[in-house]
Amino acid sequence: MNIPSKVLEKAVEEISNLPGIGKRTALRMALFMLRNPKSQTEKLSLALSSLVQEIRYCQNCHNFSDHDLCETCENAFRKDEIICVVEDVRDVMAIEASQHFNGKYHVLGGKISPIEGISPQDLNIDSLVKRVEKGNILEIIFALSATIEGDTTMYYIYKKLQGQNITFTTIARGIGVGDELEYTDVNTIARSLDNRIEYHTTAKF
Amino acid sequence: MNIPSKVLEKAVEEISNLPGIGKRTALRMALFMLRNPKSQTEKLSLALSSLVQEIRYCQNCHNFSDHDLCETCENAFRKDEIICVVEDVRDVMAIEASQHFNGKYHVLGGKISPIEGISPQDLNIDSLVKRVEKGNILEIIFALSATIEGDTTMYYIYKKLQGQNITFTTIARGIGVGDELEYTDVNTIARSLDNRIEYHTTAKF
Repeated sequence: MNIPSKVLEKAVEEISNLPGIGKRTALRMALFMLRNPKSQTEKLSLALSSLVQEIRYCQNCHNFSDHDLCETCENAFRKDEIICVVEDVRDVMAIEASQHFNGKYHVLGGKISPIEGISPQDLNIDSLVKRVEKGNILEIIFALSATIEGDTTMYYIYKKLQGQNITFTTIARGIGVGDELEYTDVNTIARSLDNRIEYHTTAKF
Repeated sequence: MNIPSKVLEKAVEEISNLPGIGKRTALRMALFMLRNPKSQTEKLSLALSSLVQEIRYCQNCHNFSDHDLCETCENAFRKDEIICVVEDVRDVMAIEASQHFNGKYHVLGGKISPIEGISPQDLNIDSLVKRVEKGNILEIIFALSATIEGDTTMYYIYKKLQGQNITFTTIARGIGVGDELEYTDVNTIARSLDNRIEYHTTAKF
């Protein structure tokens, strides 16, 4: 692409560094910004700059927060004894949307991945160990991706905390609610067979 | 979406104003920025701000340019007598990539579109008329979209310039090179029949 202006070229280059954005889409966005009032792009520019300069993390669970502690950690109605370990803030949002968890979270900030160069030291694992060592934790729920990296991370944390008097659980892997068996991949079917649950006609639906 | 931080929420909101970006993609981008070094997002922020503050337009053809005149307008090897009228800079880039045009451009900055509230006064039409009135223009090539808005814009400009001693042409509409007739829409087939060209075995391919 032969872009006729240096500032435009620079903007296209920077925008195309974002995930899922190629040069063409970046150019379309840049032209969109040039058609719009300048103030709108200035607001975007400022919001991005503020984002990386002012973002704060909850000192307890490492979720994003505007205060020292996030809303979940500050909420006295939520159980301190149960910690749900997740990869990042999107997982917290997804679980919160389900309205089926009333404990606290611990955001690792990624998964152990030698390929991507992410070692346990890069994740918020030490602070989880400290939270557990303070006592009064009864259960750790692992809500990580069902991938090799997720399983590795889970195993690493389990080994670190083994011996403490805690129940470790993982969220159930199986066929999604509303999904058809026919279109489910073999690994998911295998796992949902391995982890089959006794059927009760008195089950609460 | 219940985003746990105000700065993150603000960034997501601003990013999702971009074309083709929803809230979820915006959140993914914001989290990507937070994982990356701050300097990278600062560079993006600065590039966007510079873009809208420092962008300059060629005083002759309204293409983007770093100088008063763009490279094409300054190029003495390109014919001044032929002006190719296009909608925006992407069209200039597309035509330049074909390496089949050796004249100058005129970038309108859009199409007449009553629905979107774009009137002739919003486009660079007056300056085109002035370029023509200076004399020495022999041909105007309309390279606009084959839509109602494109046709309206073409007709409007044609009416404005009618009576001047100029040849008006439009780029050929027809079946794309490499396209199959079977999958071509009826309007394109109709148009390519109307504008059929005499077949010469001596035609230069």
